[in-house]
Amino acid sequence: MPDPMPPHLSPEEIRDALHRTADLVADYLTGSERYPVLPAVEPGEIWSSFADEAPEEPVPMDHLLDVYRERIEPAVTQWNHPGFMAYFAITATAPTVAGEALSAALNVNSMLWRTGPAPTEMEYKMCDWLRRLWGLPEDFVGHLVDTASTATLVALAAARHRHDPEVRRRGSAGRPPLVLYASEQTHSSVDKAAVVLGVGLDQVRRLPVDERFRLRPDALAAAVAEDRAAGLAPFAVVATAGSTSTTAVDPLPEIADLCAEHGLWLHVDAAYAGNAAVCPELRAHLTGWERADSIVVNPYKWSFLGFDGSVLLVRDVDELRHAFSVVPEYLKTSFLKHGGGEAGDLPHLMDLGFQLGRRFRALKLWMGLSAMGAGALRSGIRRHVRLAAELARRVDEDPRFERMAPAPFGTVCLRGVWDGPSEEETDTRNERLMERVNDAGPVLLSHTRLGPRFVIRVVFGHGRTGEEELETVWRLLAGAHDALSPGSPST
Amino acid sequence: MPDPMPPHLSPEEIRDALHRTADLVADYLTGSERYPVLPAVEPGEIWSSFADEAPEEPVPMDHLLDVYRERIEPAVTQWNHPGFMAYFAITATAPTVAGEALSAALNVNSMLWRTGPAPTEMEYKMCDWLRRLWGLPEDFVGHLVDTASTATLVALAAARHRHDPEVRRRGSAGRPPLVLYASEQTHSSVDKAAVVLGVGLDQVRRLPVDERFRLRPDALAAAVAEDRAAGLAPFAVVATAGSTSTTAVDPLPEIADLCAEHGLWLHVDAAYAGNAAVCPELRAHLTGWERADSIVVNPYKWSFLGFDGSVLLVRDVDELRHAFSVVPEYLKTSFLKHGGGEAGDLPHLMDLGFQLGRRFRALKLWMGLSAMGAGALRSGIRRHVRLAAELARRVDEDPRFERMAPAPFGTVCLRGVWDGPSEEETDTRNERLMERVNDAGPVLLSHTRLGPRFVIRVVFGHGRTGEEELETVWRLLAGAHDALSPGSPST
Repeated sequence: MPDPMPPHLSPEEIRDALHRTADLVADYLTGSERYPVLPAVEPGEIWSSFADEAPEEPVPMDHLLDVYRERIEPAVTQWNHPGFMAYFAITATAPTVAGEALSAALNVNSMLWRTGPAPTEMEYKMCDWLRRLWGLPEDFVGHLVDTASTATLVALAAARHRHDPEVRRRGSAGRPPLVLYASEQTHSSVDKAAVVLGVGLDQVRRLPVDERFRLRPDALAAAVAEDRAAGLAPFAVVATAGSTSTTAVDPLPEIADLCAEHGLWLHVDAAYAGNAAVCPELRAHLTGWERADSIVVNPYKWSFLGFDGSVLLVRDVDELRHAFSVVPEYLKTSFLKHGGGEAGDLPHLMDLGFQLGRRFRALKLWMGLSAMGAGALRSGIRRHVRLAAELARRVDEDPRFERMAPAPFGTVCLRGVWDGPSEEETDTRNERLMERVNDAGPVLLSHTRLGPRFVIRVVFGHGRTGEEELETVWRLLAGAHDALSPGSPST
Repeated sequence: MPDPMPPHLSPEEIRDALHRTADLVADYLTGSERYPVLPAVEPGEIWSSFADEAPEEPVPMDHLLDVYRERIEPAVTQWNHPGFMAYFAITATAPTVAGEALSAALNVNSMLWRTGPAPTEMEYKMCDWLRRLWGLPEDFVGHLVDTASTATLVALAAARHRHDPEVRRRGSAGRPPLVLYASEQTHSSVDKAAVVLGVGLDQVRRLPVDERFRLRPDALAAAVAEDRAAGLAPFAVVATAGSTSTTAVDPLPEIADLCAEHGLWLHVDAAYAGNAAVCPELRAHLTGWERADSIVVNPYKWSFLGFDGSVLLVRDVDELRHAFSVVPEYLKTSFLKHGGGEAGDLPHLMDLGFQLGRRFRALKLWMGLSAMGAGALRSGIRRHVRLAAELARRVDEDPRFERMAPAPFGTVCLRGVWDGPSEEETDTRNERLMERVNDAGPVLLSHTRLGPRFVIRVVFGHGRTGEEELETVWRLLAGAHDALSPGSPST
């Protein structure tokens, strides 16, 4: 070959580099515990470890993989680690990594059916597999976007379009001010969506919650009435099923009633807890979500299916198409009927949102879900629920700790308590407690604020997190509490 | 292990599956030519080849990889194929696939520095490597988003925020109508951004172009004056460097002058042609882009760096932070000074847009760019420019074809001509000509409309596309023309 492709690797070099990569991946997936979850790296250390300029000459892959193993892998916060109990834990498995590697090799952009027949049809199919596993009605059609933030933005844009189709052409200026409802516990992605859409943060009603951190329907009803009386235009409610702080589920049936009464779009952010619906005994927590106009679930979050890829389910997929499609009608050759039969045609993926380019994420969903099987998915989720229940029990029974919220899923909110200090001092001491636990290495916890209170979150969600990690985190929590107690030499 | 992780694979099974995947990837990267670029698959065929429900029991990885190889891989439009000359051709190489596989295994979300130190710092560093390769000033700070559509949306949201910071809180309702300028050749992502932002399609001024398909600055000046006189609020111009239809570059210096004069944000969509700036002799095409407020370049598009990942460069990164950050000030612990010294701190990635979750895309950029070296990147781009020039020469010299636009980069716009038929009949015949070429298998072309005319686009952009593919596409074009000419048995 006189003029080979960049990067000028021979077929043998390509194969060798990929096999060495396979070993690095296998080493990591079977042994990420060798790292502390939080890396010992200083800000700027990685930045300055790289030259200022890209190399002019090719660098051998062996050298790059050495640098990866020695310098980069240890400087990553180890999300794919059984001790990762921060935020919502996420898991990649060998089948999902295989799916992503093959997808990266195909390098396909499935914007149109024609530019990616298998990717397009598998995306709809895998979302339908998940819809069935979650027990949702067949009129919901799902597709994939990168993250829940994008899904919520897309859903709220569709909500606005249904409420006031004129905005698409005329813009928001001169239209009645739109108002959006959520609770004070709703994820910040709703604020960002309001910023991007031009709804404005002042028009996001952050409604109060009850003692279990659930949106209060009476407050919603009152706010809608007040806004209508003031001449404003309520258009959507974002209800949460599994809030970020406490995994609270808003009262979906009551909210759905109010949305029906007032003609509001109901978007359910089930990014975390929607995954639990695969277990029939947990589905009761989600009752009412089947009445939503749109739902987002992140299967990467608690279905062991690898980051990224959020499922955005909509009751009427044409509402997305009408909101977003900017191509002439003749290009909209729909390519297949929805499996449900009467739900209409499935549009090209590019017509369902603002992103033209789309990776082939369905491949890893198919590989991950099939290699696992629905049975193992259920057993994994049940294991985490069991671990959380056990930690909650210990916290409830131990006077050194108090539990700060119900724990219906895999997440426990707790804090240390001591005799004597004020609430403010207790907050500070809990910050130090969490730091001590995290500095130990084997686990990583995160915190939230409930009101002004500093609260520690423990999330059982990684696929390899089991009894051993429960014992570890409990030992570290108890030890850190004791070390911070009066009389302890290290207080 | 009493309770192993889903999907219940042993360490040996994990390693075996990943090595078999490595072989599949290597086979594909070194031999995607075994497939026709456009797959022979009917709508619905893949959808119905899958069961309606996810399997309950685990499916062995060997079986899944067999299905992948036999059923899925052949049903993908082969973007990663040297005969892919449609849209803008894109390339994944073994190093970029290795980077994506490792990134999938780490499964990290670098929303904050702390949740991904190496991913965060490498993302800024790799964007800085590219900025330097492209010869842009050091006050530009780049980060990665999924696609150019997202980059343009984010940039225009920041533009709006600079123009009218009140919108963030108060929303667009009641504010003066914003107006956005682009040419009739600008990518549809600007329309989608206008829809999402609530600017409205009627406020996107699609300005006329000159005979070389470049935005006419006189039309821009007139439109801005007219809109101001009408009480509207011009806020941004999207200029294109390498338009989708013809790779035209708008007159950036004149547009930058007008933006400076009128206080408009200049966003340059250099998704395609920005990549050419790595070659000093091609940089003159882009003169003026260094005066932009924001620039998007897709290194996956023409730098052989794997889909997805767009570089959004902004002159003042704090303008993104101010537009998007919704976290309290105390969380904004900036973690390092920008390499440029005086450009200020680098923010957490989550503060630069609306997407909270972020894959570790910088890993594949680093691996792909380093394994290739800047020299090979330049030689790859130069090869494509040479191939396009040669095809353009043949078209110009052959009475069977006419060229429809300048070809400064790797893309040639052409159509067949025949004695006799009307322009409309010529359009139809060109559609048939393109279908014939595409049906042959070894190449895939796409088309555009210039005015009403049907125009065929030939893009030399895949890393393995060389002289052989030029000869193939020329032979197929000429053969299809002859077959469609009067007197041919197949006319």
